[in-house]
Amino acid sequence: MRRGTMKVRMGMIGGGEGSLIGPVHRMAARLDGLTDLVCGAFSSDRDISRATGAREGLPASRVYPTWQEMIAGESKLPPEVRPHFISIVTPNNLHYGPAKAALEAGFHVVCDKPLCISVEEAEDLQETVDRTGRLFCLTHNYTGYPMVKQAREMVTAGEIGTIRKVVVQYLQGWLSAPVEKTGNRQAVWRSDPARAGIAGAMADIGTHAFNLAEYITGEVVTELSARLNSIVPGRILDDDGTVSLQFGNGMTGTLLASQVATGEENNLSIRIYGEKGGIIWNQMEPNTLTLLWSDSRVQLMRTGTSFPGTGKLASLHTRIPAGHPEGFIEAFANLYRNFAMNIMALEEGKAHDTMINYPGIHEGVRGMKFLRAAVASSRQGSVMVSL
Amino acid sequence: MRRGTMKVRMGMIGGGEGSLIGPVHRMAARLDGLTDLVCGAFSSDRDISRATGAREGLPASRVYPTWQEMIAGESKLPPEVRPHFISIVTPNNLHYGPAKAALEAGFHVVCDKPLCISVEEAEDLQETVDRTGRLFCLTHNYTGYPMVKQAREMVTAGEIGTIRKVVVQYLQGWLSAPVEKTGNRQAVWRSDPARAGIAGAMADIGTHAFNLAEYITGEVVTELSARLNSIVPGRILDDDGTVSLQFGNGMTGTLLASQVATGEENNLSIRIYGEKGGIIWNQMEPNTLTLLWSDSRVQLMRTGTSFPGTGKLASLHTRIPAGHPEGFIEAFANLYRNFAMNIMALEEGKAHDTMINYPGIHEGVRGMKFLRAAVASSRQGSVMVSL
Amino acid sequence: MRRGTMKVRMGMIGGGEGSLIGPVHRMAARLDGLTDLVCGAFSSDRDISRATGAREGLPASRVYPTWQEMIAGESKLPPEVRPHFISIVTPNNLHYGPAKAALEAGFHVVCDKPLCISVEEAEDLQETVDRTGRLFCLTHNYTGYPMVKQAREMVTAGEIGTIRKVVVQYLQGWLSAPVEKTGNRQAVWRSDPARAGIAGAMADIGTHAFNLAEYITGEVVTELSARLNSIVPGRILDDDGTVSLQFGNGMTGTLLASQVATGEENNLSIRIYGEKGGIIWNQMEPNTLTLLWSDSRVQLMRTGTSFPGTGKLASLHTRIPAGHPEGFIEAFANLYRNFAMNIMALEEGKAHDTMINYPGIHEGVRGMKFLRAAVASSRQGSVMVSL
Amino acid sequence: MRRGTMKVRMGMIGGGEGSLIGPVHRMAARLDGLTDLVCGAFSSDRDISRATGAREGLPASRVYPTWQEMIAGESKLPPEVRPHFISIVTPNNLHYGPAKAALEAGFHVVCDKPLCISVEEAEDLQETVDRTGRLFCLTHNYTGYPMVKQAREMVTAGEIGTIRKVVVQYLQGWLSAPVEKTGNRQAVWRSDPARAGIAGAMADIGTHAFNLAEYITGEVVTELSARLNSIVPGRILDDDGTVSLQFGNGMTGTLLASQVATGEENNLSIRIYGEKGGIIWNQMEPNTLTLLWSDSRVQLMRTGTSFPGTGKLASLHTRIPAGHPEGFIEAFANLYRNFAMNIMALEEGKAHDTMINYPGIHEGVRGMKFLRAAVASSRQGSVMVSL
Repeated sequence: MRRGTMKVRMGMIGGGEGSLIGPVHRMAARLDGLTDLVCGAFSSDRDISRATGAREGLPASRVYPTWQEMIAGESKLPPEVRPHFISIVTPNNLHYGPAKAALEAGFHVVCDKPLCISVEEAEDLQETVDRTGRLFCLTHNYTGYPMVKQAREMVTAGEIGTIRKVVVQYLQGWLSAPVEKTGNRQAVWRSDPARAGIAGAMADIGTHAFNLAEYITGEVVTELSARLNSIVPGRILDDDGTVSLQFGNGMTGTLLASQVATGEENNLSIRIYGEKGGIIWNQMEPNTLTLLWSDSRVQLMRTGTSFPGTGKLASLHTRIPAGHPEGFIEAFANLYRNFAMNIMALEEGKAHDTMINYPGIHEGVRGMKFLRAAVASSRQGSVMVSL
Repeated sequence: MRRGTMKVRMGMIGGGEGSLIGPVHRMAARLDGLTDLVCGAFSSDRDISRATGAREGLPASRVYPTWQEMIAGESKLPPEVRPHFISIVTPNNLHYGPAKAALEAGFHVVCDKPLCISVEEAEDLQETVDRTGRLFCLTHNYTGYPMVKQAREMVTAGEIGTIRKVVVQYLQGWLSAPVEKTGNRQAVWRSDPARAGIAGAMADIGTHAFNLAEYITGEVVTELSARLNSIVPGRILDDDGTVSLQFGNGMTGTLLASQVATGEENNLSIRIYGEKGGIIWNQMEPNTLTLLWSDSRVQLMRTGTSFPGTGKLASLHTRIPAGHPEGFIEAFANLYRNFAMNIMALEEGKAHDTMINYPGIHEGVRGMKFLRAAVASSRQGSVMVSL
Repeated sequence: MRRGTMKVRMGMIGGGEGSLIGPVHRMAARLDGLTDLVCGAFSSDRDISRATGAREGLPASRVYPTWQEMIAGESKLPPEVRPHFISIVTPNNLHYGPAKAALEAGFHVVCDKPLCISVEEAEDLQETVDRTGRLFCLTHNYTGYPMVKQAREMVTAGEIGTIRKVVVQYLQGWLSAPVEKTGNRQAVWRSDPARAGIAGAMADIGTHAFNLAEYITGEVVTELSARLNSIVPGRILDDDGTVSLQFGNGMTGTLLASQVATGEENNLSIRIYGEKGGIIWNQMEPNTLTLLWSDSRVQLMRTGTSFPGTGKLASLHTRIPAGHPEGFIEAFANLYRNFAMNIMALEEGKAHDTMINYPGIHEGVRGMKFLRAAVASSRQGSVMVSL
Repeated sequence: MRRGTMKVRMGMIGGGEGSLIGPVHRMAARLDGLTDLVCGAFSSDRDISRATGAREGLPASRVYPTWQEMIAGESKLPPEVRPHFISIVTPNNLHYGPAKAALEAGFHVVCDKPLCISVEEAEDLQETVDRTGRLFCLTHNYTGYPMVKQAREMVTAGEIGTIRKVVVQYLQGWLSAPVEKTGNRQAVWRSDPARAGIAGAMADIGTHAFNLAEYITGEVVTELSARLNSIVPGRILDDDGTVSLQFGNGMTGTLLASQVATGEENNLSIRIYGEKGGIIWNQMEPNTLTLLWSDSRVQLMRTGTSFPGTGKLASLHTRIPAGHPEGFIEAFANLYRNFAMNIMALEEGKAHDTMINYPGIHEGVRGMKFLRAAVASSRQGSVMVSL
């Protein structure tokens, strides 16, 4: 695909030393050479922020102690210097504020998932995005995998027939012990309702699973029945849950999310069954898409620039020939690349390929509605609740 | 293990030409050379019954047109000639009658699952078994796999710690088209409430999944919430469903059973997570048990007489060294072998190894209670229902 | 497929208590209900022979202390009583004598592989088979797997185009320690040139690999270059080796056989590449055949009576629907079933389906020539040697 | 690990539009944010070179039509502007000249494999590296995978005991048709002796396999016997081959390399067997290392920053927690990162962690000696030839 020659400039909020996802965002932004990090407020700890900035090669003048100062400071810089977009990689409760401020200041925004901590915040962000016309990317990064793109293209084109059933599972084991009590930074904020919001595992990974189901099928969940469990003693938020999904097209689904599935790494998988066939994808072996056909044929599609049979959507998100595994960072980078290309197109007043896209504010609002419904259903004895 | 030198004699009801499961029962009974088929009423079609009997090498005098005649006729033969047990491999609605009659006539019984079509029938059979003292085996054959035995031994010995979560899935695709309308014999009776009972997929395969979850964990489901779907238009009984399980020990579980998962063969899998580790088993690759430990180590246990680390229970149910795959028939044969050895021990008045066992009438009653609860919950908007 | 109603009678030489392969032969013979064991000389140890006979339910009169006595004794019984065939499951050096005697006495013969211990013995047996007109089955049991049949059918029908390359590997680890010195019965005779013959691993498992390559491709090895290694100190015969194969059709191949591949179970795999595609089969997951097409499509074929796309040959050797794993014993049983059906056809003077076949004396001679050439090449610095 | 704050500057020779490996090198160099591309001579086609430079955001003044002009031109720039190193990603015959010139001009060098086209060139380059003291990285990129690092650490530490056997296979199918005749750029030069050198598949992928075997085992091949085949009609160089390896420590090995294994993607695997265990790694599923122990235990090690049990070497080359697949680019990037860190250390006069390393000129010379010996052996009827 053709690229322009400009570079897109990025600022970052959060992601200082010790952050898990901050470095992933930076690697993803760098991979394709379209985006340069130009400023950051990497931590509420001034020393950490400064150290991270230095390591990233930023001048001290563009490393800030708070996100408020960064947005204020960068806004004063000339347009050709200040960042095109701000990437927000803070805990859930610190998405809304920076995102809203950045949008209002005229910056595009990339925001880690889930969008925020309430439907109200989400809808306000949506209104802000709509009003400001700024671009907004929510990093539901699993949608960036080529084989997820391929699945979406096939399913929405009707290749497996009318879809009937989706089973999506996201199993992790890292919270099977109360590591939040022994100082695990990732666990501490995720298990704290003040920072994580109304849900735990369901917010952290359930929203990924929910998004993946809606993304691949192109269908919308209308109702759900949920059962959320707090399995490790002393934990306030859910660390495990099962949700029955009812989609608008009549399809049903089951969503499992657990962070107490002891020994599981990051086991996200989805199975979609239609009248004519089934499609299976597993994140831990992401380069294979398994197609099951109603006449029992089994077929494997594989990530690879040269793989015949994969459609245009997958090809646009693939970098190397088949057999050279593409991984998590490459998929994540697809979101950043697409976002950068959209910014370029916008800046240059050009049309852009609509396949070069990314999850946005809409997906963020959906996620928050999903969480609200799941928590409500679980509290009311798993009754069916509409979204 | 030591075996006696007597042969156990078997009669069969059902399983004539065109039967899927009849030949499997016969191969399973033959494999270890402990059991001889001596009589049968293989079909309600007299010609089919006769042809099957001839093919099995039975004298015409011991091939009957009806099960009633067989039980009556064989009862008149001398004890050293008549069968020790009757194997019942008919549709669900034809389990109760023959089983009850056979028990009352003094025969031991092997019966295909599910036990029957109502809790009332099940409890009456249980009373009959208790009163007559006859042995009863319900062919929940998946419990016969060595690695299922190994999983049970490890889980019940506490090797993965307090168990918290079980996820069991049974996915098939063969009913994704309305094949009952195009003459598929297996589909015709399974989709007919008069012959299958109150449930479809949940009875046919859901009871296997339910049994497997209780068998491996050694825990008892006390409550459930179910959502059963009839996805293929025109189908009265469920062909798909999800059940949330609550176990007596506080553990939760999720059970999926679908026969409209297009393209799936016979994909039964179970994952059990405890405080210290997780255990995964898949029926389609049955010789591997995957152990996930809380410290992230991943270990594979493999079926094989020489595999160190597998416990006594698995060893007792394994025939060949590791790397020589044991399959479905071998697992099925483990039930028959164990049943035959129990009959021998009983006949010879000897004690027998309690590890040489098989699912029985109790498991049959559990299955019927599971179905009753699942159907009730689903009809009442997925409310939690106690078993 | 139609079967006659007669039962085929089998005698056995070798396979007493402690034998690995004896019980496998008996299970395989029993599985389909076509064959009854009627006599045996199970061990040179009279007590063991007697105990095994008793366990198998044989009358004492038909359990013999030596194979010579068995052949003599059974030959005197009426035709309708004496065995149709003799199964020989002794160490390699004890194949020729019993096989020859059995054939001369008018019995058909099943013989474990390798056929014997020299090309001379092999050719003499071939002459005997030809002269007596008796049926002879050599248990290269891996050819009994449905997916091996399918591979052969596809390859010989040209579906993957002109074949160019075959890679066959047979990796085991059980001889990685000198277990023959610590009493492992299987290892003792296999590492003893007097009983095993001129080769060790190459005879024990290399001949299987060689047979599989010739069987699936339908092509004949004409020349080879070999390098045999005796890796464990003190071992006289090879326990590891690599052979370059040249086939008559111009195709080349590589054969690896090792019994010191520490930790490997019974890892036999074969890959065949043609102009249009490749075919991969692994014995440890025998129910899947992977097809790689030149346009990069990957397709899985699966064992199962109902699997569309598999050809007639595979279907004839499959017992249950897809997803119900068939294993080692089922594949082994396919040889016994086919052999029994050929005996029936011969006895009844009927034509039989030529697809219902089994490896025979020809394959035995090929195996001995392969071993002779491999040993010769290795001794002469891996020079190319013709078969 | 700590990083300095300087950026390393890179120039590139080759890798213009249409290049396969050029973009991979650039992504790999970018991923960790340590290296900036500052100049290039991307193609002998002036327009292509210019277009690539523009796309990479380079000023026109630093995009050159020939590598000679680039080296000359950049040498005149001030030290703080000109590149620290030159990356050479041209066909094999265009490695020696640019590499030698760059070294002589004082630049460090990264060079694609194989090093060059003769042992003479290789030894001259080695002399040049030694004399100039410049750093030299040969991109045997598969050594960059964390699980390859882990395998090396375990094997060289003796964890699987004295090593006995290595089996390394590299199977591709993309040359199974004569695509060099239909304009495939990659195939054209690789099948042309003038540009590829004395070997085809063995040079292109066999050297990777050879390097991997020596890298993981830490042992040196002393002799080999090879059989190289030109399977596709009309091809001068080998497109397939098998090599028997003899290592200095007594270990034997088998190396297969084929580019006519129809349907194979990029199937590189290695199996190493020692007295105590075996280690298996497959490039297409690179995040798993399978350990087979002599007592039959099977254990999986997994890439992941948090995976206990993996050693320091793997940890230093891992970016994200287990379950988030790292792929080909990440492994490639490990070479670039290590090279950049070594340059930084050298520039700053600091000691560096010797685990932060990369394949160098020595590996390049080994590869050329391997090719020379393999071609010689094959031409002389597979005789054993010493390296």
